[in-house]
Amino acid sequence: MAENVKDVYEGSFKEGGTFIRWIKKPKLKNPVFIQGLPGVGYVGRNAAGYLVDELGAEKFAEMYSYHFPHVVLVDPNKRGMIRELKLEFFFWKAKKKGQRDLIILIGDAQSMDPKGHYLIAEKIVDVIESLGVKEIITLGGFGTGELVENDPKVYGATVHEEDMAPFEKLGVKFKDTAIGQIIGAAGLVLAVAKHRKMSGVCLMGETSGMLVSDPKATEAVLKVLDGYLNLGLDFSKIEERVKELDKIIKKIENLQEQLLSSLMQQQTRRGEKKSEEKDLQYIG
Amino acid sequence: MAENVKDVYEGSFKEGGTFIRWIKKPKLKNPVFIQGLPGVGYVGRNAAGYLVDELGAEKFAEMYSYHFPHVVLVDPNKRGMIRELKLEFFFWKAKKKGQRDLIILIGDAQSMDPKGHYLIAEKIVDVIESLGVKEIITLGGFGTGELVENDPKVYGATVHEEDMAPFEKLGVKFKDTAIGQIIGAAGLVLAVAKHRKMSGVCLMGETSGMLVSDPKATEAVLKVLDGYLNLGLDFSKIEERVKELDKIIKKIENLQEQLLSSLMQQQTRRGEKKSEEKDLQYIG
Amino acid sequence: MAENVKDVYEGSFKEGGTFIRWIKKPKLKNPVFIQGLPGVGYVGRNAAGYLVDELGAEKFAEMYSYHFPHVVLVDPNKRGMIRELKLEFFFWKAKKKGQRDLIILIGDAQSMDPKGHYLIAEKIVDVIESLGVKEIITLGGFGTGELVENDPKVYGATVHEEDMAPFEKLGVKFKDTAIGQIIGAAGLVLAVAKHRKMSGVCLMGETSGMLVSDPKATEAVLKVLDGYLNLGLDFSKIEERVKELDKIIKKIENLQEQLLSSLMQQQTRRGEKKSEEKDLQYIG
Amino acid sequence: MAENVKDVYEGSFKEGGTFIRWIKKPKLKNPVFIQGLPGVGYVGRNAAGYLVDELGAEKFAEMYSYHFPHVVLVDPNKRGMIRELKLEFFFWKAKKKGQRDLIILIGDAQSMDPKGHYLIAEKIVDVIESLGVKEIITLGGFGTGELVENDPKVYGATVHEEDMAPFEKLGVKFKDTAIGQIIGAAGLVLAVAKHRKMSGVCLMGETSGMLVSDPKATEAVLKVLDGYLNLGLDFSKIEERVKELDKIIKKIENLQEQLLSSLMQQQTRRGEKKSEEKDLQYIG
Repeated sequence: MAENVKDVYEGSFKEGGTFIRWIKKPKLKNPVFIQGLPGVGYVGRNAAGYLVDELGAEKFAEMYSYHFPHVVLVDPNKRGMIRELKLEFFFWKAKKKGQRDLIILIGDAQSMDPKGHYLIAEKIVDVIESLGVKEIITLGGFGTGELVENDPKVYGATVHEEDMAPFEKLGVKFKDTAIGQIIGAAGLVLAVAKHRKMSGVCLMGETSGMLVSDPKATEAVLKVLDGYLNLGLDFSKIEERVKELDKIIKKIENLQEQLLSSLMQQQTRRGEKKSEEKDLQYIG
Repeated sequence: MAENVKDVYEGSFKEGGTFIRWIKKPKLKNPVFIQGLPGVGYVGRNAAGYLVDELGAEKFAEMYSYHFPHVVLVDPNKRGMIRELKLEFFFWKAKKKGQRDLIILIGDAQSMDPKGHYLIAEKIVDVIESLGVKEIITLGGFGTGELVENDPKVYGATVHEEDMAPFEKLGVKFKDTAIGQIIGAAGLVLAVAKHRKMSGVCLMGETSGMLVSDPKATEAVLKVLDGYLNLGLDFSKIEERVKELDKIIKKIENLQEQLLSSLMQQQTRRGEKKSEEKDLQYIG
Repeated sequence: MAENVKDVYEGSFKEGGTFIRWIKKPKLKNPVFIQGLPGVGYVGRNAAGYLVDELGAEKFAEMYSYHFPHVVLVDPNKRGMIRELKLEFFFWKAKKKGQRDLIILIGDAQSMDPKGHYLIAEKIVDVIESLGVKEIITLGGFGTGELVENDPKVYGATVHEEDMAPFEKLGVKFKDTAIGQIIGAAGLVLAVAKHRKMSGVCLMGETSGMLVSDPKATEAVLKVLDGYLNLGLDFSKIEERVKELDKIIKKIENLQEQLLSSLMQQQTRRGEKKSEEKDLQYIG
Repeated sequence: MAENVKDVYEGSFKEGGTFIRWIKKPKLKNPVFIQGLPGVGYVGRNAAGYLVDELGAEKFAEMYSYHFPHVVLVDPNKRGMIRELKLEFFFWKAKKKGQRDLIILIGDAQSMDPKGHYLIAEKIVDVIESLGVKEIITLGGFGTGELVENDPKVYGATVHEEDMAPFEKLGVKFKDTAIGQIIGAAGLVLAVAKHRKMSGVCLMGETSGMLVSDPKATEAVLKVLDGYLNLGLDFSKIEERVKELDKIIKKIENLQEQLLSSLMQQQTRRGEKKSEEKDLQYIG
């Protein structure tokens, strides 16, 4: 089933900056690629993560990049164990008629700089192209800035107009939306894929954008995926799963806050001492 | 008329970062290059865009770069369709005596970082040099910070003093201006081109700098171009066209604002929750 | 004892950006690598520096990088002498049974940008891998944000669970900690090393994070190292040594503050003069 | 006298990023290199500029870099003419016994990013090494933050202790100074040169740091240079010359302010319109 690949690194931080560790190379039949990376309300990340867990998808590759934040996490589930920031590729093989083989990408982080966003998007497309992907579904959240009281909507955007119809049947709104732009990998992977003649849509769950993560928006996106991919998912564990994922998410968010504020704090802290340190001045 | 080139990519995000997609390679006779990219009052971008529309110029190449913002737009004219940020090259062949073949560059964005500005300028000059360009006219706005009540002036700057005369005849002010510097591609393309022995001027329409885009400044710049290039343009549709272009511009501007503010917002939002998340601290 | 290497540069700022100057290449037997770079409370930097001094370890290599701040220091111990920012590698050979050969890394700075953090971590691992290191101990501080009144604790994190036990015997807390993430080289060196099949722990001394440097947290970390490595260290000079090291640290911290604030100051200073300089405006 | 080199470009923005345009390659006898780039009080830049003018030194090379700000200047002395940001190398041959051949570097800008500072420093050392330089004098200002009422002092820093003596005889203070660090090329060029076995000092004129440029500090530095190099300079034109140079300096400073503030302004300006543009939201 899988080719003879085991724990092979393609590149390193110094050779390319963004690189893949192949755990194995799956053989898949016309697979659909589903991507959920961190973003507004962690809708995309959580929906794809739930899919991995519910389907029991198998990890086959990891992606590392020096465009990610310069930290390691101490894993909340294994206290004291260090966990690097990475993206993780999983595969799942169709179990019955009407289903498709899937590749699912989840991850801890997006790029810290614009250039890195483009390079990571291109590297993701390299991986899925090598596995025969022709169709992409990226998942994200659409932050309205207001509380979403009832059933959150799912919005869509696409690179080929003809890809809208099957999702519109499932209630996805493409045409009467207020969406003006898509930031980061959810959009850029589709843009890069378009130049390689792949098709794809971005599905975005309506969320206030004020919660760390939004289980209702996550469920709304998952229901579209379930319908489109004929998966027969059990949705009962979403709340519970999202709470678990929140632990890691809070660490990453907290950390980005700290990376940003540490420079300022240091400056303030040092400023208070300034009168004692009169002998240190700027020259240039 | 055009060489046998069709949809050829020179590079990618990972091979060079800034690359050209050639749709076709036009054969032109001593063409003048006209550039209008986003800037103050969108004067340059809108003037060049109007020229493309009015002349019915034909697109022959696109430029992509990982120095652009890390987003895709959802096209306001085709709801639900994703549109990548790009620069677009058009050509137009002279229709009568006294006219010149033209290459016109318009685009969605400029570089997010200083280095990218230089590299994109050099890549633009590579393209036009390969098509035989010897003369360049870059378009921009000159933001005064005050309302411009009457006819906006057009200011000029040049790399060769002898290029001033024909534009001065058309009312362009080179010598008694308050212009101290030109930021971004409007100036850097001329600087790079100078080292390749090309000549060129930058034409800048006086604008308050407080409007999203300024139809009057756009018209002032177009009238100089019309006179210099003997185009016989119809100016009646400028207001209407500028309004249409505003739709895209607003999305891009809004987006840059969001890219900048999202980090801060996230920080604030997270800060409010801090008391509940006491167990997460900084170490280094 | 040492190979025939003397003052060899591997790279330069323009060839690689981060490079090693080899003073000599020591031959070591299964050495343990100990790293202490600037961080919260300068705990790691000061603990490793004390180790170098107390053991009389010998410098064998320096690392330079264009990811460090763009400054030179005027050495506080040799007034008027310029000192570049660098990392310094020392070695020490075991003197008696139960001891291990050591490689100790101390330094003036960490990277200014995320990408540089990853590249410097990988370069550090290159050096120690070439000298046969299989085991790594990185040192740092864990800033609680509150005054630490009594004996500061030492926290730990690791890449392999089985490495916890010997440190837990020495009082290091791995499991019941509040540590969520590790910023910079203390964590990234372990992450990179894990991919090269090395093992390692990060030891972090509890500190308020509000002092320039914290002698008590430094001592707590050193006591763990002393127990684990069977060194028989004299701890009586820590306070005095930390005060000396503070001189250099204050210069570096002050300087980073100045690098950050100089842009803002300049802006403010210039802003005050603006009315006199009406003739300079922005164009784009 | 000069080798057969005329207008040769070594590199471009896309080939290396920082490159030299050789106008001619002078043959010099054991030349001293003097560098004055923009910094506090423009002391270094103005002192070196005065030297070029007074000695009638001849330009032989220019350096361009994509690490400089992404702008062109409109030259204040030639209204309407575009001027790129660059560094300029001049040479001057000794006229009488007791003098030395000189290479003098002046420039419009320093790097916008830390990495660029290191790369530009290394490129400068490449140029002077190729011309046989063994001794370097970099010039700068030392900003005290307080008004300097009487004769400004000249401070020094060096990479070799034995280089202090001749400058100390001329009143330069190396040992009892409060200088803690040197930011940018004035220090980094010496650091890079040290690794190539060159010697050098940095001379810094005491200045408040609150003036755009400081003629008195400039004169103090020039008097040391005059004494050391036996030049017999006329100091009567310093005030007048510094005023002229201020014109260009003001443009560059103003511009850096604008580059910084334009993002914020745009954000504010757009923020005010937000209620009208409700249909544009963030998604990720």
